Amino acid sequence: MERIFVKDLRDHVGEHVRLAGWIHHQRQLSRLAFVVLRDATGLAQVVVEDEGLRAQVAELLPETVIEVEGQAIDVSDAPGGVELRAPAFSVLAAPAAAPPIELRRRQLKEQLPTLLDHAPIAFRHPRERAKLELAATSIAGFRSALDRLGFTEIQTPKIVAAATEGGASVFEVDYFGRSAYLAQSPQLYKQIMVGVFERVYETGPVFRSEPHETSRHLAEFVSLDAEIGFIADHHDVMAVVREAVAGMVEGVRAQAAAAVELLELELPSVAEEIPAVDFTEAQEMIERATGEPVVGELDLAPAHERWLGEWAQREHGSDFVFVIGFPMEKRPFYTHPDTARPRFSNSFDLIFRGLELSTGGQRLHRYDDYLAALSARGISRDPFEGYLQVFRFGMPPHGGFAMALERWVAQLAGVANIREATLFPRDRQRLTP
Amino acid sequence: MERIFVKDLRDHVGEHVRLAGWIHHQRQLSRLAFVVLRDATGLAQVVVEDEGLRAQVAELLPETVIEVEGQAIDVSDAPGGVELRAPAFSVLAAPAAAPPIELRRRQLKEQLPTLLDHAPIAFRHPRERAKLELAATSIAGFRSALDRLGFTEIQTPKIVAAATEGGASVFEVDYFGRSAYLAQSPQLYKQIMVGVFERVYETGPVFRSEPHETSRHLAEFVSLDAEIGFIADHHDVMAVVREAVAGMVEGVRAQAAAAVELLELELPSVAEEIPAVDFTEAQEMIERATGEPVVGELDLAPAHERWLGEWAQREHGSDFVFVIGFPMEKRPFYTHPDTARPRFSNSFDLIFRGLELSTGGQRLHRYDDYLAALSARGISRDPFEGYLQVFRFGMPPHGGFAMALERWVAQLAGVANIREATLFPRDRQRLTP
Repeated sequence: MERIFVKDLRDHVGEHVRLAGWIHHQRQLSRLAFVVLRDATGLAQVVVEDEGLRAQVAELLPETVIEVEGQAIDVSDAPGGVELRAPAFSVLAAPAAAPPIELRRRQLKEQLPTLLDHAPIAFRHPRERAKLELAATSIAGFRSALDRLGFTEIQTPKIVAAATEGGASVFEVDYFGRSAYLAQSPQLYKQIMVGVFERVYETGPVFRSEPHETSRHLAEFVSLDAEIGFIADHHDVMAVVREAVAGMVEGVRAQAAAAVELLELELPSVAEEIPAVDFTEAQEMIERATGEPVVGELDLAPAHERWLGEWAQREHGSDFVFVIGFPMEKRPFYTHPDTARPRFSNSFDLIFRGLELSTGGQRLHRYDDYLAALSARGISRDPFEGYLQVFRFGMPPHGGFAMALERWVAQLAGVANIREATLFPRDRQRLTP
Repeated sequence: MERIFVKDLRDHVGEHVRLAGWIHHQRQLSRLAFVVLRDATGLAQVVVEDEGLRAQVAELLPETVIEVEGQAIDVSDAPGGVELRAPAFSVLAAPAAAPPIELRRRQLKEQLPTLLDHAPIAFRHPRERAKLELAATSIAGFRSALDRLGFTEIQTPKIVAAATEGGASVFEVDYFGRSAYLAQSPQLYKQIMVGVFERVYETGPVFRSEPHETSRHLAEFVSLDAEIGFIADHHDVMAVVREAVAGMVEGVRAQAAAAVELLELELPSVAEEIPAVDFTEAQEMIERATGEPVVGELDLAPAHERWLGEWAQREHGSDFVFVIGFPMEKRPFYTHPDTARPRFSNSFDLIFRGLELSTGGQRLHRYDDYLAALSARGISRDPFEGYLQVFRFGMPPHGGFAMALERWVAQLAGVANIREATLFPRDRQRLTP
């Protein structure tokens, strides 16, 4: 008999069916036992009446892998409205011990370090698994949105010869006896590829040797990167960010409806035009509202991002807000200045529910501008020669953005620490599992 | 005026249009000049008659980034059947020098090392670019096929605590002062995730510190990985490989038709059931045919894979052939034996046009079996404790496979060296660009 998935059980009411999965938990009552079977698609209740079978089943540890055949019966108060009766069990794999995480609870009770230590098991819990479904469907939605806009997907090297985003937070690799580095971003490569495909994206790992432990930084994360040629300025990039984010929301809505329901999430709506506020104006607003002396600082503190998130919600009913025109001083060397006021840049951050989700902008595209920018910042050209080469041979005005998948999922799921939304996080302390 | 892409030019015959792109090459005749503009979608011919303009345009280097407005005219012998007349040019970016690669040729003449040194420019050539289009559309086709089969996409860490596929070919990373390694495969993680989603895939980089320089190995490549729970044996995995490969072919056919035409490729057809031959029988066939003493060897040499590729073509009219039942001795410790003849394994290789494209099989799923397998091979358990943990808590019979994207593209494009089909390859010698 062909095995069916729990999600399809309702379509087989009245039939004899086979399920397979894990014993999520079981309850022994005086005259019957309820066994809850978990598969990749949901939970199903199996009712055991036979006394001999109940005794056998009672011996099975949680997470025993089983097949069950039985009659699918319409029962309005069973989970999903169906239960399996008159079952026959076979054991595919017996655990060596009960799992270190109590998966049977509706919400896990264990503290974060315990959950992270036992992540291979913790992710079996429907609510934990649901967060990974948000990630999978978001990334699919990102790709679909950019595919529709004529982008080409690329895969660029992660072992590189030079630190691309500043030398401080780069991991070193022993590369056949030479020093190499793990790519902090695909920045230089995606710019190069604008010369080939005009519009490219990459969804892959990036590596930052972050010195601090914060609730929003990881040593390795999944970066959703895009780069676009023939733009007028950063506003053309922001329009693509808007499409990408809308695609991610749509991906989740269309493909992870059960996860959204289980986690009781409210998906953000993405306005045709996401509100944008100038960096300096934002500082002035924050200063007026809080009394804190903010104007003149070169970047936004996390608390300011939160303030702007609330402001966007209050003033525009938006979960998203762009901040544009950051000072050049804090942006990377490849940033294009605002030609009308060269101390400021054609750059942006996208704040989602009070957290910086994405950063991007227009890039320099002329060789001489790169030489001048590096020289003005006192950065040596040498490690970048291979990269600069491409700007000698004709590059159009271009720009792009990067978005951290884990931050997106964390904000969407409303968790306090990015590690709760990351499959096997890496940080200063944590290298396993 | 809105810019249009070259691929859409035919739809605008008779209109005044704007194109943007690079000067691919130009020819000055006595009374007119032909400027060939290249954008991400193709090549378009621009005819310049005005004498003053011809003189100006003649000064422009190849790869100058331009916008051109002009009249789209139906001209049967122009490339694509359309050309632009009475043009007005504007220069968006002037190169500092002519490019080091002669992009104007129909096929590049430069040798491979030169092409690799100047890959950022070489990939601007339509034929080079086409190979990357094969890669992009293949990976999309892989994902679509597995999505249809109910797989969930995962992203697993690339910085890991232990060498997963044997210690010899692993890169070491300085991880906050500790030793860590670059993942040689997502093997252990994708197995873990079978416990969560039953069916998972990942498309991401893997890292092998390959000691040898060959035409088919890279130090970093894109691995298309999948893992499937609740299988009977490796044949269930092979059925998924078949779907994945068919999806990749379909992705290329549907999305990269222009690249296929330009490269004059014949796409493989994928039979409903890909022919399969037992390892030992394959050896016997090769021995009979070549006189070489092959039977008893533990693996297939590249020459034997080529022989089997020709055999599959001749006997089955197939570009693909599975070899199944490899000796346990040469397969990794997590390999499931063939219970009927335990010296051999429930494993397979997929050979595509004579080259090993994919490898996979059934895995062990019982904790005690892992302990026995490690002990029999004299491998210490310690580095694998975190991994083995999951097998203590109920894992179903499962298996999976991995496929190297670059090998696929190389074989599809018919190139001799995998480096010709890789965006910025990494090997012992090469760490840039």
